[in-house]
Amino acid sequence: MDADNYTIEPPAKVIEWIGDAESGYLRLLDQTRLPVEITYIDCRDALSVWDAIERLVVRGAPAIGVAAGYGMVVVAQAIADGEEFIPAVEKAGEYLISSRPTAVNLEWAVKRLVAAAKASDQSDPASIREAMLEEAGNIHSEDRRLCEAIGANAVDLICGCSGVLTHCNAGALATAGIGTATAGMYAAHARGHEFTVYCDETRPLLQGSRLTAWELMQAGIDAVVIADNMAATVMRDLRVQMVITGADRIAANGDAANKIGTYGVAILAAHHKIPFYVAAPYSTFDLSIASGDEIPIEQRSAEEISEGFGRRTAPQGVKVYSPAFDVTPAELITAIITDRGVIKPVSEENIRKVLA
Amino acid sequence: MDADNYTIEPPAKVIEWIGDAESGYLRLLDQTRLPVEITYIDCRDALSVWDAIERLVVRGAPAIGVAAGYGMVVVAQAIADGEEFIPAVEKAGEYLISSRPTAVNLEWAVKRLVAAAKASDQSDPASIREAMLEEAGNIHSEDRRLCEAIGANAVDLICGCSGVLTHCNAGALATAGIGTATAGMYAAHARGHEFTVYCDETRPLLQGSRLTAWELMQAGIDAVVIADNMAATVMRDLRVQMVITGADRIAANGDAANKIGTYGVAILAAHHKIPFYVAAPYSTFDLSIASGDEIPIEQRSAEEISEGFGRRTAPQGVKVYSPAFDVTPAELITAIITDRGVIKPVSEENIRKVLA
Repeated sequence: MDADNYTIEPPAKVIEWIGDAESGYLRLLDQTRLPVEITYIDCRDALSVWDAIERLVVRGAPAIGVAAGYGMVVVAQAIADGEEFIPAVEKAGEYLISSRPTAVNLEWAVKRLVAAAKASDQSDPASIREAMLEEAGNIHSEDRRLCEAIGANAVDLICGCSGVLTHCNAGALATAGIGTATAGMYAAHARGHEFTVYCDETRPLLQGSRLTAWELMQAGIDAVVIADNMAATVMRDLRVQMVITGADRIAANGDAANKIGTYGVAILAAHHKIPFYVAAPYSTFDLSIASGDEIPIEQRSAEEISEGFGRRTAPQGVKVYSPAFDVTPAELITAIITDRGVIKPVSEENIRKVLA
Repeated sequence: MDADNYTIEPPAKVIEWIGDAESGYLRLLDQTRLPVEITYIDCRDALSVWDAIERLVVRGAPAIGVAAGYGMVVVAQAIADGEEFIPAVEKAGEYLISSRPTAVNLEWAVKRLVAAAKASDQSDPASIREAMLEEAGNIHSEDRRLCEAIGANAVDLICGCSGVLTHCNAGALATAGIGTATAGMYAAHARGHEFTVYCDETRPLLQGSRLTAWELMQAGIDAVVIADNMAATVMRDLRVQMVITGADRIAANGDAANKIGTYGVAILAAHHKIPFYVAAPYSTFDLSIASGDEIPIEQRSAEEISEGFGRRTAPQGVKVYSPAFDVTPAELITAIITDRGVIKPVSEENIRKVLA
């Protein structure tokens, strides 16, 4: 499958390179304005790339990596011919990484672009930029292919359901392709299957109602928003026959860290005997950690809960407990759907077999 | 125990009668302004009582009943001596009932006040008003006593815990006393027991973060607000050793309808082997319905989810599923704590025995 041969178009142009290596630019869908406005930000200099990543105009590990790749081409355009080109590229890369230091894919993409620059014909800045744009395009294509492969492995499951529940946004908006948890949904929709996706709104930041519902609607998929605390009733009503979410990090034993609330949804699914799936590319697995117990969970700011909508909804000075993630133990996960195959049952042995 | 002999003061003056029957008035804590402002509304005429009930200045079945009782005294003050007094009281009662036609306690309180007026010395309007104020005070005292009795039956359970989780507001703000789910908390606090209450914020209307956290803080109880989807992690962290909620309606077999999300919390508690309690007065039981299957569940408006904070948080035109209540089946309820005793295990036989 090459870059021009995907089977399914993503529902939105999240990341796009417009033009050639010398005078082109990076266009990003401004996710901070969704779902109210569909606007794009064109990044033509290092500051605008830095700012877009820092302000979460682009978000989601894969999407950040792809945007950073193209962002490096933008910064390379500003390097004058007389400068020491490679050191200047490296310095600009450090600058971009500082926009979101914890985003692993950001540093990874910057390093790939620096390596591509070094491997190119360094005598000619135009050649370096061409090589960098090609490498950025490779990152983009690879991500689209990962999403498509996950979708191919999930599509039959979705086609067996009239209703699916998801939590947060592991969607097209978080990737350069058709998403991870959503990939099977777009594939099933492309096949003509009709189904409904119940989207947990996902407090505190509401990625489910703001982003997942929006992107599914763009594709014409039937999306229904619910408050997080309605998931149990949706299951009891027999409105969904499966749950599928993304993951931020999966340990060697299959324990999966994901957005806060995922663990609770997995328990509710088990109680209702509804299969609970995790969809993630091979790169989400961290086989260096034995179990979810080793995954640190950061706390988010109290204000996201107490005045997250621009209006105070909890008493001044109240304590807030707000873990950003939770860990769903492997025994609650029916299967993990990866680009390399389906891991079922979820065990260290099966994970190593499928990823090998 | 008489009206002047309660052991525990409620954390706020939710409903108060100021003055005598002839020139006194009803003072209500304005719950629509909580938790940002503590303001009171003085009701000196029928319109202001009607408006306060309609706008949810006062809310919660018991509190509405108590407010309506005093509200009837207010309307009786406006009846001129020359009028046919009893028909005028009845007409004013119909008017008050129209402020919130589905509130069962509202109609019940109005009927009690009409009956008190009829049973009084009807030759003297002043005597009728005196009798009505006395009956309104009776409703008030009875509600305080119910809360205290629930608290007495729950206090030992709370004293055995360092952490408790609750959902929505079945608190002092919903009654004229120390609440239902919160009654044991206030009683344990009065005993000097130190503990933390995790308050689910309770989407869509956030009664947990706006009201429960506020009233617990007023009393000096350690309250922590969480988003609804964090309850599973709070349990897994071993931060709570019990869950206690209120109920809107309990069927003969013990199935309990309550605010949406309660059912999910009960499943999470069962998964973590944490006891799940329901606290409610005898009047919440509806022995005419065999099980929760017979309890109709109303849908709330989509806007409470999609733009519940004055800001749009879901795409324009998106579908929303928003049941107002859910039903927790009896088998997930460890015990029901009533004013008449503790029902454990929850079965039709035990319910009839304790309520008898």
